[in-house]
Amino acid sequence: MRKQLTKPGQLLRITTWLCAGTLLGLAACSSPSGSASAPAQLEGPTNSLHSPGGKLTLRFGLGADGVPAYQLFFGNKPVVQPSRLGLVLQNQPGLDKGFTVARVDSSQHDDTWSPVWGEVKSVRNRYKELAVTLTQAAKDDQKERQLVVRFRLYDDGVGFRYEFPAQPGLTYFTVQDEVTEFNLPANHKAFWIPGDYDSNEYTYTTSRLSEVDTAPIEVIQQKAEPHTVQTPLMLKSDDGLYINIHEAALVNYPAMMLNVDTKGFGLRSQLVPDATGTGAKAYLQAPEHTPWRTIIVSNKAPEVLASKLILNLNEPTQLTNTAWIKPQKFVGVWWEMHVNKASWNYADTSNIKLAGTDWTKLKPNGRHGANTANVKRYIDFAAKHGLQSVLVEGWNVGWEDWAGNWKEEVFDFVTPYPDFNVTELQQYAQSKGVKLIMHHETSSSVTNYERRQDEALRFMKDHGYDAVKTGYVGRIIPRGEHHDGQWMVNHYNRTADHMARQQIMVDMHESVRPTGLHRTYPNWLASEAARGNEFNAWSSGNPPEHETILPFTRLIGGPMDYTPGIFQIQLESWNPERNKGKQVHTTLAKQLALYVTMYSPLQMAADLPEAYEKHPDAFQFIKDVPVDWDDTRILLAEPGEFITTARKAKGKDEWYVGSITDENARPQTVKLDFLTPGQPYEATIYADGSGASWDKNPQAYQIRKQPVTSTSTLQLQLAPGGGAAVSIKPVGK
Amino acid sequence: MRKQLTKPGQLLRITTWLCAGTLLGLAACSSPSGSASAPAQLEGPTNSLHSPGGKLTLRFGLGADGVPAYQLFFGNKPVVQPSRLGLVLQNQPGLDKGFTVARVDSSQHDDTWSPVWGEVKSVRNRYKELAVTLTQAAKDDQKERQLVVRFRLYDDGVGFRYEFPAQPGLTYFTVQDEVTEFNLPANHKAFWIPGDYDSNEYTYTTSRLSEVDTAPIEVIQQKAEPHTVQTPLMLKSDDGLYINIHEAALVNYPAMMLNVDTKGFGLRSQLVPDATGTGAKAYLQAPEHTPWRTIIVSNKAPEVLASKLILNLNEPTQLTNTAWIKPQKFVGVWWEMHVNKASWNYADTSNIKLAGTDWTKLKPNGRHGANTANVKRYIDFAAKHGLQSVLVEGWNVGWEDWAGNWKEEVFDFVTPYPDFNVTELQQYAQSKGVKLIMHHETSSSVTNYERRQDEALRFMKDHGYDAVKTGYVGRIIPRGEHHDGQWMVNHYNRTADHMARQQIMVDMHESVRPTGLHRTYPNWLASEAARGNEFNAWSSGNPPEHETILPFTRLIGGPMDYTPGIFQIQLESWNPERNKGKQVHTTLAKQLALYVTMYSPLQMAADLPEAYEKHPDAFQFIKDVPVDWDDTRILLAEPGEFITTARKAKGKDEWYVGSITDENARPQTVKLDFLTPGQPYEATIYADGSGASWDKNPQAYQIRKQPVTSTSTLQLQLAPGGGAAVSIKPVGK
Repeated sequence: MRKQLTKPGQLLRITTWLCAGTLLGLAACSSPSGSASAPAQLEGPTNSLHSPGGKLTLRFGLGADGVPAYQLFFGNKPVVQPSRLGLVLQNQPGLDKGFTVARVDSSQHDDTWSPVWGEVKSVRNRYKELAVTLTQAAKDDQKERQLVVRFRLYDDGVGFRYEFPAQPGLTYFTVQDEVTEFNLPANHKAFWIPGDYDSNEYTYTTSRLSEVDTAPIEVIQQKAEPHTVQTPLMLKSDDGLYINIHEAALVNYPAMMLNVDTKGFGLRSQLVPDATGTGAKAYLQAPEHTPWRTIIVSNKAPEVLASKLILNLNEPTQLTNTAWIKPQKFVGVWWEMHVNKASWNYADTSNIKLAGTDWTKLKPNGRHGANTANVKRYIDFAAKHGLQSVLVEGWNVGWEDWAGNWKEEVFDFVTPYPDFNVTELQQYAQSKGVKLIMHHETSSSVTNYERRQDEALRFMKDHGYDAVKTGYVGRIIPRGEHHDGQWMVNHYNRTADHMARQQIMVDMHESVRPTGLHRTYPNWLASEAARGNEFNAWSSGNPPEHETILPFTRLIGGPMDYTPGIFQIQLESWNPERNKGKQVHTTLAKQLALYVTMYSPLQMAADLPEAYEKHPDAFQFIKDVPVDWDDTRILLAEPGEFITTARKAKGKDEWYVGSITDENARPQTVKLDFLTPGQPYEATIYADGSGASWDKNPQAYQIRKQPVTSTSTLQLQLAPGGGAAVSIKPVGK
Repeated sequence: MRKQLTKPGQLLRITTWLCAGTLLGLAACSSPSGSASAPAQLEGPTNSLHSPGGKLTLRFGLGADGVPAYQLFFGNKPVVQPSRLGLVLQNQPGLDKGFTVARVDSSQHDDTWSPVWGEVKSVRNRYKELAVTLTQAAKDDQKERQLVVRFRLYDDGVGFRYEFPAQPGLTYFTVQDEVTEFNLPANHKAFWIPGDYDSNEYTYTTSRLSEVDTAPIEVIQQKAEPHTVQTPLMLKSDDGLYINIHEAALVNYPAMMLNVDTKGFGLRSQLVPDATGTGAKAYLQAPEHTPWRTIIVSNKAPEVLASKLILNLNEPTQLTNTAWIKPQKFVGVWWEMHVNKASWNYADTSNIKLAGTDWTKLKPNGRHGANTANVKRYIDFAAKHGLQSVLVEGWNVGWEDWAGNWKEEVFDFVTPYPDFNVTELQQYAQSKGVKLIMHHETSSSVTNYERRQDEALRFMKDHGYDAVKTGYVGRIIPRGEHHDGQWMVNHYNRTADHMARQQIMVDMHESVRPTGLHRTYPNWLASEAARGNEFNAWSSGNPPEHETILPFTRLIGGPMDYTPGIFQIQLESWNPERNKGKQVHTTLAKQLALYVTMYSPLQMAADLPEAYEKHPDAFQFIKDVPVDWDDTRILLAEPGEFITTARKAKGKDEWYVGSITDENARPQTVKLDFLTPGQPYEATIYADGSGASWDKNPQAYQIRKQPVTSTSTLQLQLAPGGGAAVSIKPVGK
């Protein structure tokens, strides 16, 4: 129930801006566009809004020149010092200063909702809201304008956004820059990847804010300025606060990156630009609003992982029938291409035109993975082991020279290679009770994909597919647009919506990183949008700490299709030349643990069937582990070091524990007090073997079973780069 | 039949480049990227290729540094002085120098083909061809590369293009610039519009080349450099040559504009750039070729208008069934919007979102033209007067704020306004034997149109439409692309092709200017792509000379939907305030003559039914005049001054004559020696009335009939800004 708490001016008494020249160098107080700006000083007890449980305090006010600002405390500890709010517009005065407070609305909210799928059965959404209506007086030709800043304050963080009500003075407008700041009080430790308008596929750097410098890092696609990092940005303060900055509900707006002031420790919004070269970021029409800017904060690292703040800030789905949306495990004709056993392409040529090529006349290279017989082998394997589906990449024509040429007509999404029999495989899969997962690699030629998407989805429906993995490798067409810009954000969302209407599930790769939109589009099961497991196959790999950071960063926004479960860790068996020195940078047991520590409703058993058949005992965990949960407990967690998570299977009294470590061996003590008291269980522990280590002895594992109850404690000994996976099933009383 | 005339080096002996510093200022000989460059000097009788009838001579050769060049003569008169050829590529060495001649192929061709529709029943395609294969030696990492320059020399001009054969050294490449030059020997008179990457809707300036300066001209959309003009560029030399420079078969390439060297009288290709801001012009994949660069030349102006060179250089259609393609005359709910009698939009609001708006809840403004009753009135009118079809603009939702906001989701192309009953009108039109013409205004949000085009065409098919007028008003989305860039060129062509497959005729407005592609896509009946008649309704208007220039410029590439036939020339009857001082800048009789002088298979009777009903005698000419012809004779023509054209109706012994003048009154003597000898005819002459003039007395006309034969001569007296239209029908012997 909403109510207006106070009259304007009563709640919020702001005194003065401090032009903290000593802190921020030469920045002028009145310049919102400088690289550093002056923080506001907000005073007085009545400026404050406390979170429902009292943990957090938010202050909002106007500083000198009518500049809006906010401040956030965790208890008495400052989380965000006074920080500017506002937007600079193109070809008209900015919405960044000259405001007065016209109205302040406050309300509180508390309810519980059930996700279609997720880590928990139900989610509590409890916050206090402050909506401040700011007004700029009419001036010259400019009519009066209004801007609403809406805050939702939770016990584990805050979300706020800008809202542009319908008004005579503001209809169509272009956001040139958002000046939102997150001024941090000290030189925190940060877990960051460099700002890149087109890619998230970086390893993380852990450094003090003062040391952020992306320049030495090899560019993946289109790197931003040297002090720009991406969100979700994970921070840890010396006084024990864990802080995560990201955004929720990224709709009709570019992704937000953060410019780091390495001297003053301020962060400032850096939106991804559009193709015009004018610096334009977003084309908006009132009424409209920005995504939520989110700050999750706790003095306990596990609480950051457990936060549902971003999900809560997204809109509920409008789908009434969601029965067709099915969390699932799958295998795929995929890893064999990454380890050079097979190819996506059917022929070896570097010059193919989609139109006019007779694909039956091409000379097969003999290594094409997506051939009918091979796919049947995967279908058989999935059926035998109870995995729901089989992804097939490389099934459709166009892979001969699909990447790197900025070519518009690459794929048509409906023409199979001559050795891939769509109808035969449809019937075969159906007879085995297995689904095929469609693959739409766009090579980032998005105009081409959009023209053909209707037909591509009809083709799916006609051939029994109900899920698709999409891909956006390469430079975007429309040329000049970026993967993370407004135009592409709209494309991903439109695609998810379009597919939802057709009852198709989607897994997007190389898309923008998620912001909780899987609440709105529960058919959008997962995204990649980070450096996945396949980098271990052909690059310098992912360092052992990688998977202990991802849940604190990328996964804050939503599930990732990380493709865990690689058993053939040293890759020695396939192409010795190309795979020389390449290996997955974990132990085998850690690969199992990832199914629990990296939440996704869509989990691949990523390795080859033959690799699993060599280790049927270890594979049993992958067969057992659910992909949908009634409950989740983050038991132990420290970003960059370790994570131990326990989850309760959907609708069952079964628990699964995953525990992982970085390059350091470490013991983890797991209290099983989440189990039903009095109920006897059997725990099956998939642990690193004696002498195991990610680099020297990754495939050493041991499996043991032991009876446990809610009073038991498991002692897990994680090897360097190792992990442990545990299934806990009730036994008859 | 092709044959290799000579061995390399034998045919073409090139001596030296002259670094004509005195002529071209400081330009360096070796720089292909400067604003002016050095012409080649080509010598020796064996360098020459003569046109089939011997009128023209072409020379090709390599100059210093292996730079390719050509030269063109009309008899002994130089048309083009030695001029560079070649292309600069992005991120790799250019294809502009360092060549040797590897092979020279020569052939001749002579056949006759029949267009699906056109100005003549059959077209002779007679040329000599020279294909020169140029080679750049391998160097450093660069493999050997080949470039073919292919010339087709006609008696009325030449076409040449660059071809990129499939080759190991050149697969994917980006054209940064084309350095094609047309170095003219003197300071010719030019009829030009300023270079604009997005619009052709300018009035023409007639000036010497030395005086070309587009800076003072008001920009319509995105003007190029101050000395850049558009093609077709019409030129006249002091020694009596008429020269037209344009291009044919613009496919997968940006439009060519021309940079004018106002001191040296050189013209140089200026391609329209893409959105990246890198100066990239075209993304190509070998095998590929550029459009043909065309030079039409004659010492008789009518021969320029009669040239079929551009059509001949286009590919024949691949359609086997063309019976559904119907040249036609139409009326439309259109002019009443231009003269402020009605509106495209249904409601008056400046803020509408396509998604979520309940259009039935909007308050109608009471002026919406595309309402069911009004459309029925047009259907009745068309049926009564034997016009085939009715265009309806403003029928579909989204017009409230469709333009000027660079908004992506403007129209959906399938949702009618509440007062437009699609089914009722479909049935009504069918019962009257009239077709409705669909309207797809895209507001240049082309990504939106492409996503919806499939559905939009299905909607058309479902509702009995077989023709559509498309529109591209505003700035292009994908943002940063231009109307005349490669991406949009591909869009127009893809649209024409897509529609051809669905048996839909199309008339494109605000598209790139045509280059003869209506031979390949005969369903592409017409384009606008120039300043049409509607400018007379609400701007400073089109000067009286405008229609005497268009056939020498814009129409060289293909038919224009100019929308002639305005009878209510002073517009005084509708909205006195907004129309004050506005009028069409011709006489009424000239409006009739335009149906003959401006060839199109799609001709609008553009004025309101009530305007025609006031002048049924004059309207008779519009009812009579055909839109498809067996023969055409350009009788008298001088660009910017006058044109008199006679055409023979398709399959009938009827002739129609149109005669127009600029602002000067002039007599025109028309010999009717094209009539069948011995056959008596009756000529009906629609002439300017006594005292008529475009500005003072535009509606004065007189109609007289007289018997004529092939020995008759008509004396037509054209008023200032006036014209005459004549129908000549056989009478029983």
